Amino acid sequence: MSKKIGIVGYGNLGRGVALALKNAPDMELAAVFTRRDAAALAQTVQADTGLTVPVLPVTEAAQWQGKLDALILCGGSATDLPQQTPHFATMFNVVDSFDTHARIPEHFAAVDAAARKGAHVALISAGWDPGMFSLNRLYAGALLPDGVDYTFWGRGVSQGHSDAIRRIKGVKNAKQYTVPVESALAAVRSGSQPQLTTREKHTRECFVVLEQGADAAKVEHEIKTMPNYFADYDTSVTFIDEETFQREHGGMAHGGIVLRSGKTGAGNQHLIEYRLTLGSNPEFTASVLTACARAVCRLADEGQCGCRTMFDIPPAYLSDKNGAELRAALL
Amino acid sequence: MSKKIGIVGYGNLGRGVALALKNAPDMELAAVFTRRDAAALAQTVQADTGLTVPVLPVTEAAQWQGKLDALILCGGSATDLPQQTPHFATMFNVVDSFDTHARIPEHFAAVDAAARKGAHVALISAGWDPGMFSLNRLYAGALLPDGVDYTFWGRGVSQGHSDAIRRIKGVKNAKQYTVPVESALAAVRSGSQPQLTTREKHTRECFVVLEQGADAAKVEHEIKTMPNYFADYDTSVTFIDEETFQREHGGMAHGGIVLRSGKTGAGNQHLIEYRLTLGSNPEFTASVLTACARAVCRLADEGQCGCRTMFDIPPAYLSDKNGAELRAALL
Repeated sequence: MSKKIGIVGYGNLGRGVALALKNAPDMELAAVFTRRDAAALAQTVQADTGLTVPVLPVTEAAQWQGKLDALILCGGSATDLPQQTPHFATMFNVVDSFDTHARIPEHFAAVDAAARKGAHVALISAGWDPGMFSLNRLYAGALLPDGVDYTFWGRGVSQGHSDAIRRIKGVKNAKQYTVPVESALAAVRSGSQPQLTTREKHTRECFVVLEQGADAAKVEHEIKTMPNYFADYDTSVTFIDEETFQREHGGMAHGGIVLRSGKTGAGNQHLIEYRLTLGSNPEFTASVLTACARAVCRLADEGQCGCRTMFDIPPAYLSDKNGAELRAALL
Repeated sequence: MSKKIGIVGYGNLGRGVALALKNAPDMELAAVFTRRDAAALAQTVQADTGLTVPVLPVTEAAQWQGKLDALILCGGSATDLPQQTPHFATMFNVVDSFDTHARIPEHFAAVDAAARKGAHVALISAGWDPGMFSLNRLYAGALLPDGVDYTFWGRGVSQGHSDAIRRIKGVKNAKQYTVPVESALAAVRSGSQPQLTTREKHTRECFVVLEQGADAAKVEHEIKTMPNYFADYDTSVTFIDEETFQREHGGMAHGGIVLRSGKTGAGNQHLIEYRLTLGSNPEFTASVLTACARAVCRLADEGQCGCRTMFDIPPAYLSDKNGAELRAALL
């Protein structure tokens, strides 16, 4: 029987989940919960998915207890998820994409307590980093204990860095791309296990639209010397007009590479490399959340409860195929 | 407490496991079982590992029931493992690297019945293909259901193809390298989802030492027209002398790439790519088997029994670190 999935929050990520569910033969979108105008959003959801599903104020979600197999939380990590995930984990099986790495242990503890209280399963920090990249760091480290990890991000947009530029006086619009340095990648792949500085791993490319009359040289200097965000990087700043910005910098492509360079036995060198080239960061993240919702439903069906991450999920639980099918087709 | 691990069979793979166990703080090599002269092998094991461990005839393994936490079976898939894995699964928790893809369902059934009978855990088909490549096909398929898988092998030695050449009259020695075709890889990475023929994906490079007086042209023709093995590929044949063969073709490097090209939502393209570049095929496979032995011990400690594959193993079980450590360091 098809698992009934709810979505909380219908931005780019929530929309991606709604679309991913259409490709899942064993799950269906059952409800969308929003802080926006529910009636207006219902039209958007129908236009996106072709489905007529209940779109309701998020305050009504509690009334759906027992009617949903899992809830996918599509809010932001800064303020939404630290509150929403524990809140809803007392009522539903939940999945989130909490991505503030430093605060994961604290978020895990809060969600675990809530999920156990409600006898539900919660899976946090699903996506690609944290998520698939984390999994690849775990697998590679377990297989090559004598080795070094490297993670490169990009080419892709960093939302945080784009926001930092937009806060500069005289900036109308801005997009910042994080770009891996090819020579650093080549050094890692050579097996030399280089120690790489921040500057050696990534460059930062900024595309900036100025307010009328703004001082370009001053803005460029402010960007390039901004502590934490840009001062430690080779940063390029390109000024463009609003029209070019809208035409060429609206994409949400991203990706990156996780590598581990290590040795076994008598010194044999190995390289494990996992690369994602994503046409849409939110849609790929949504696909991971959707597969994780399937796993969460299975764990719940087994009577499990508490908080999990992708580290704890048997890979087969992410697939709609059964064990015999997977062994015959993919092993 | 350190888990006690036994090895059955001490070829390249068994030796790799013995070396990998030295890098595992939570496991120790407790015994090696062999069909060869045990006393002579004991000296080899000590020279390889620096450890003095019991090396015993494989017929004595049954007496070690209850004294080992897991047994890693390092025999071949053609004749050893179909017998050994079910046999030992009645007595021990076991791990094997059974790699005859077409016979996996049958092997799984036999091992599952034996493991359940003995209330033990067995994990079959661990390694990189089957193994890590299979896992990556599973993950990528679950995340991008609307997509196409591609697996490329090499550059690396195919034992089966090397053997096939050596069976030709007039051939003294031979090594066959499987090499991915770069243009095919480029086509896959472009997102065009090409349909690739066997010939388009891999080339085969053969290095052959002739017996004195053998007809080179005849041998080359026999290789290139051999059905199944070479006829469907662009094959190159290079004749070399025995000295060059020994000097340049003794390595056991291998590797390959698993890719999935897929779409989400409104047609956004994604590419997932997993690449292994292995300095030693048997030592890397041995590292996977060793990590899987750790997982098998944990499943057994939980009271589980029956046959598993890497599809069924929570990734965290492969690591010697605990959940909190993994979340803090790798997520």
